[in-house]
Amino acid sequence: MTDVADAQLLARIQASFDRQHLMQTIGATLETVAPGRVEIRLPFRADLTQQHGFLHAGVVATIADSACGYAAYTLMPLDASVLTVEYKINLLSPARGDYFVARAAVVRAGRTVSVVQADVVGHRSGAEVAEVQVAAMLATVMVMRERPDRPS
Amino acid sequence: MTDVADAQLLARIQASFDRQHLMQTIGATLETVAPGRVEIRLPFRADLTQQHGFLHAGVVATIADSACGYAAYTLMPLDASVLTVEYKINLLSPARGDYFVARAAVVRAGRTVSVVQADVVGHRSGAEVAEVQVAAMLATVMVMRERPDRPS
Amino acid sequence: MTDVADAQLLARIQASFDRQHLMQTIGATLETVAPGRVEIRLPFRADLTQQHGFLHAGVVATIADSACGYAAYTLMPLDASVLTVEYKINLLSPARGDYFVARAAVVRAGRTVSVVQADVVGHRSGAEVAEVQVAAMLATVMVMRERPDRPS
Amino acid sequence: MTDVADAQLLARIQASFDRQHLMQTIGATLETVAPGRVEIRLPFRADLTQQHGFLHAGVVATIADSACGYAAYTLMPLDASVLTVEYKINLLSPARGDYFVARAAVVRAGRTVSVVQADVVGHRSGAEVAEVQVAAMLATVMVMRERPDRPS
Repeated sequence: MTDVADAQLLARIQASFDRQHLMQTIGATLETVAPGRVEIRLPFRADLTQQHGFLHAGVVATIADSACGYAAYTLMPLDASVLTVEYKINLLSPARGDYFVARAAVVRAGRTVSVVQADVVGHRSGAEVAEVQVAAMLATVMVMRERPDRPS
Repeated sequence: MTDVADAQLLARIQASFDRQHLMQTIGATLETVAPGRVEIRLPFRADLTQQHGFLHAGVVATIADSACGYAAYTLMPLDASVLTVEYKINLLSPARGDYFVARAAVVRAGRTVSVVQADVVGHRSGAEVAEVQVAAMLATVMVMRERPDRPS
Repeated sequence: MTDVADAQLLARIQASFDRQHLMQTIGATLETVAPGRVEIRLPFRADLTQQHGFLHAGVVATIADSACGYAAYTLMPLDASVLTVEYKINLLSPARGDYFVARAAVVRAGRTVSVVQADVVGHRSGAEVAEVQVAAMLATVMVMRERPDRPS
Repeated sequence: MTDVADAQLLARIQASFDRQHLMQTIGATLETVAPGRVEIRLPFRADLTQQHGFLHAGVVATIADSACGYAAYTLMPLDASVLTVEYKINLLSPARGDYFVARAAVVRAGRTVSVVQADVVGHRSGAEVAEVQVAAMLATVMVMRERPDRPS
């Protein structure tokens, strides 16, 4: 990819990401965008926790799901938008951390359906092990052609 | 179940639910609690949407996941707590509605692992079809014995 | 449905089922075919077992997967064929039984993608509990239009 | 690992594999065994196909599931055996090939529950692309302590 193509891709994904109001509500930001790969970052917040004080699995899944969708989106034609058909997530460890990163990578980009996997890691400054994987996701997303992702 | 047992069960689940700060953050409430069954309700809010203006799949999954966990919890001994091992969710329709209800029912209650299924429906007042199923979940939760779910 | 329509549907599914050589290899038969619902039956055989002598999870999944695919197929146009995109299966109990039945029911029939759930039960003649659910599946299948399912 | 430990591990897994009668029935063999990793190989056979002549998804899943189970087993204490709790599989491409290899790797080895991922690739001699990934699996397996995997 040229730098121009990269910049256009980033702008396109960022614009869609900014229309996902939930991302702002939980404080998630788009970190990395490359063909077939997307990373989303989320700082820990006490109002996003489950009953034991860890990040709620629903929030972990939310950033992983969005990262998967946008990773697939990077490989789609400009007139298409993306829809999550389904995903499966394994919660591997309590979601402890100062901040979390969901890293998605396309496994197979299809004409109609793409398959994407994602990991979520928790980062703890000062901890013995700085980075712990807290979740693994395998997702199926649908390419919706001739339905560009833009403001309605 | 006697009414007393029912009331104790509800109180126990409600106390744990109230410690899930995310539930308050997104405005979810515990509706129904019965042995093996739990319902969680969530009114639509614009700050919980994805890029097309529907409820974000992550929020749909969050209430379904919590409903599954608590449905399993209703059948556990008092000294146990519950942990989501994994789940799979299919998003069936755009999550349109004035409010949403996640309904979970235990498929199999095991000594160590329980399996729970959940549906999420969207309710639209004034719409031709008042209730539409927007998601189906199949979840695995772990029973953690001798680790009661209480404030730390 | 008229009886004629029912008979045509059964004939269409049976013809496709008969082309699945694996079904003959493991001894599975098509039992029930109705709009949105299919049942497949499999007698126990010692050469289909895992290391503890129960039916192998792979065989349990095979009949559930085929039942899901054909259940979706019953609701598709005549010029279409069906492809499993993905499934998730929970193994609930050791697969004990004289014979097993996989029962699939369509959750949502879509234009491009359908979602189907299935249970597998084991039947034991003479046992205290005659029928035990051994697995639960949630599957996504794709409708492939203008690609009829017929001998090549 | 020492060579002795490696040889013991291989012997232990091979003995359990040989008790899985289904593996012989479909012609699968254990190829690679290392701590946290297992590969299973399966030559194509016409009696294992689905209606379009490709390897049936159920067989693809069977070798992936067994590879996941044994990959987890390599990291367990000697008095334990392994049980598949659930898995999710995405079928990525038609399962074409002269032979297939399922490659499993442990994502997280837990005290009670382990999470394993597996890929299945199809190999075609003489084809332009010699190796194509046909499936991706994410599985949860349970460690059953004080229940060694041995002949009953």
